Amino acid sequence: MAKLLIKGCIIVPVNGPVIERGAIAIEGDYLTYVGPQETLPPGWEGAELIEAQGMVALPGLVNSHTHAAMTLFRGYADDLPLRQWLEDKIWPLEGKLKKEDIYWGTMLALAEMIRSGTTTFADMYFHMEVVAQGVVEAGLRACLCQGLIGVQDIAGLRLRAGESLVREWQGAGEGRITTMLGPHAPYTCSPEYLVKVADRAAKLGVGLHIHLAETRQEVEEIKNKYGLPPVAHVAKLGLFKVPTLAAHCVHLTEEEIHILAENKVGVAHCPESNLKLASGIAPVPAMLKAGVRVAIGTDGAASNNNLDMWEETRTAALLAKGVTGDPTALKASEALTLATLGGARALGLEKEIGSLEPGKKADVILVRTSGPHWRPLNDVVAHLVYSARAEDVDTVIVNGRVLMNRGELKTLDLERIYTEVNRRMADLTGSPRFLKV
Amino acid sequence: MAKLLIKGCIIVPVNGPVIERGAIAIEGDYLTYVGPQETLPPGWEGAELIEAQGMVALPGLVNSHTHAAMTLFRGYADDLPLRQWLEDKIWPLEGKLKKEDIYWGTMLALAEMIRSGTTTFADMYFHMEVVAQGVVEAGLRACLCQGLIGVQDIAGLRLRAGESLVREWQGAGEGRITTMLGPHAPYTCSPEYLVKVADRAAKLGVGLHIHLAETRQEVEEIKNKYGLPPVAHVAKLGLFKVPTLAAHCVHLTEEEIHILAENKVGVAHCPESNLKLASGIAPVPAMLKAGVRVAIGTDGAASNNNLDMWEETRTAALLAKGVTGDPTALKASEALTLATLGGARALGLEKEIGSLEPGKKADVILVRTSGPHWRPLNDVVAHLVYSARAEDVDTVIVNGRVLMNRGELKTLDLERIYTEVNRRMADLTGSPRFLKV
Ligand SMILES: [Zn+2]
Ligand SMILES: [Zn+2]
Repeated sequence: MAKLLIKGCIIVPVNGPVIERGAIAIEGDYLTYVGPQETLPPGWEGAELIEAQGMVALPGLVNSHTHAAMTLFRGYADDLPLRQWLEDKIWPLEGKLKKEDIYWGTMLALAEMIRSGTTTFADMYFHMEVVAQGVVEAGLRACLCQGLIGVQDIAGLRLRAGESLVREWQGAGEGRITTMLGPHAPYTCSPEYLVKVADRAAKLGVGLHIHLAETRQEVEEIKNKYGLPPVAHVAKLGLFKVPTLAAHCVHLTEEEIHILAENKVGVAHCPESNLKLASGIAPVPAMLKAGVRVAIGTDGAASNNNLDMWEETRTAALLAKGVTGDPTALKASEALTLATLGGARALGLEKEIGSLEPGKKADVILVRTSGPHWRPLNDVVAHLVYSARAEDVDTVIVNGRVLMNRGELKTLDLERIYTEVNRRMADLTGSPRFLKV
Repeated sequence: MAKLLIKGCIIVPVNGPVIERGAIAIEGDYLTYVGPQETLPPGWEGAELIEAQGMVALPGLVNSHTHAAMTLFRGYADDLPLRQWLEDKIWPLEGKLKKEDIYWGTMLALAEMIRSGTTTFADMYFHMEVVAQGVVEAGLRACLCQGLIGVQDIAGLRLRAGESLVREWQGAGEGRITTMLGPHAPYTCSPEYLVKVADRAAKLGVGLHIHLAETRQEVEEIKNKYGLPPVAHVAKLGLFKVPTLAAHCVHLTEEEIHILAENKVGVAHCPESNLKLASGIAPVPAMLKAGVRVAIGTDGAASNNNLDMWEETRTAALLAKGVTGDPTALKASEALTLATLGGARALGLEKEIGSLEPGKKADVILVRTSGPHWRPLNDVVAHLVYSARAEDVDTVIVNGRVLMNRGELKTLDLERIYTEVNRRMADLTGSPRFLKV
């Protein structure tokens, strides 16, 4: 089995104290040693070696909610009222997307994620088989689902595509791909449809990925229609009998916070998207206090407009303080935990990833500390959360395989991706401008 | 006079429309041409040439409020209650700072600022003559003031140091340095002292830099003591008879917003520091609507924890939407204006810097668009605000002089700065840990 040894780094394992001068040993796709360099067991002489002096090793970041292919819409429409943004801009372009557009938009997203140290992401879109294909090629880890709209004629069609995805791709890419069913939201899926989808998920043995309580408008609409706010409504339908990943959860009653905690629902907190679309700010400290499994997500690049988990985690940590008036809310170590182990828990992968410990999968990133924004090195964890940037990521390892080293992508051809994306945007928008970039 | 020509870039001049394929001509320290490459006047054959294909040129960012030397405290104390943070951590260490410590902490800040595309900053600290010295050496532009505490024995001493700074450094570094007097805040300066400082500023012909209305506690204290909230209080004292730069302005009455607008007070909005210290969120859209001259600032690295104006500007743009519930609040172009021309106005430098136009000083930055987070190139201004990162900055020009090219610092020795900062932190904290980094 292939052996890989990382030496000389500071290790932030997330599940335990910082190790000042550590070593990480990887055998195949597993971590076999994470600890001080001096106490590394023998037998690693022939291993491939990464000298990581001056770097920090930590578990790869988990982006718990995105729509990868929407990188195509990055900056395409901003600063508009929500309805106008969706109806005049995003939906018409989305309606034109072909399978191949989604593939190349996803590849751009995967490049951006690897570059910025994300090793696992949860994705909801359509034509998801091409997303799965891209993930297999890129080497990332992902939890994928077909977005299911249950109020149109296509409801049955989409659900069958969603089930196919589960049957054909669960466990693909050496186990890197897991799947879910993805009912889009309670305002786009009827109660009957939600119940049906949950039943199918239970039968297939997979979880659900859904948008919940994103806007005030949604909360009013669901209350008016069904007499309960979104989380209470879907809980009553029995959705949470299967493991659920719920994006946003911005507007919650206290009762609903307890429902989320009791049902072990993973909540993908997407602070920048929620701010940008003026949806509001999720009550993260209250959720954490109640024991909710909070994770961090970027949402799609149409409403963020990047897939940078460093920025997202920092924003989460800062907002929690600013909104509660408590400067001790969501400390650096807690925020970093949400972005790693919290994401793993929300995706049901906490036994495999989210922290650096022997027996877990080898999803490791190395972060350079050579920039002036890293000095003086007063506190590594504080610097990771409050100062670090995507470009500090030097090396990305997923499932024991090096996907990026010294900033160089090993599995993706960036020039090809740019060419395809430009050509497709020229076609989709009718603007030849993209061909000149 | 030295001639420098930048060719092939997209130009975002801030004061006018985007130029798709532009040229920028610099003679000495001035911009002499900013426009399409095709219409560049003749006579630039012998000029030093920067080929900037695939880059965006824009005015250098203006950090309107910071305490540069406080990079020394980056990550030294985080996530603590405000009083404990100040009294147990920051003040004791600050009390030990020698002139040389401030110099090297400032040099670290200057490196971080150049790296991230900041060309001008407003700074308040003590031993400011060494800060001025550092600015002259680094080649940046700065508006400097000695922080004046008016309730202690040192009030007179500090004021004399502040006046010396004005007399000795105003216009230094080929005019790159301007000065102000810096009464720290209404809760650290008595009314009599504030009046005295404003009188001196008027006599010296300089402005004031002050912290105003940062926390609810400050507002309550000032109201209890003087019967008026902070802005109204200092306005009544006549402070605004001299041009004033006010940091924070988080908690304001409607009346105070109008006072700020009428008196042309520059407001340094520091969203990340205000969030991190749990001070609150400044009412930026309301201030802009009233005509207040809003700018963006990072505050010191002890409460941010970086000096990254990209991040700060993005946070400002996102927060404005999230807090007002209006997704059209503080559009990308408006946010970028605050970070450039807005900063220039707040510092009283709008005739010299803040936009790219012939006759203004040549403070220009070039930003790479080669990262995946820049694709597709749907909207350059949106990407600058919502996607760009500090590491995208390739080239930094201040006053016609290249301070960074291809990411390489031309005026600063980063290794020397790191060595000095580490040695000083080891001394200041008694921890030899810093010597090993
Ligand atoms: Zn979403
Ligand atoms: Zn300050």
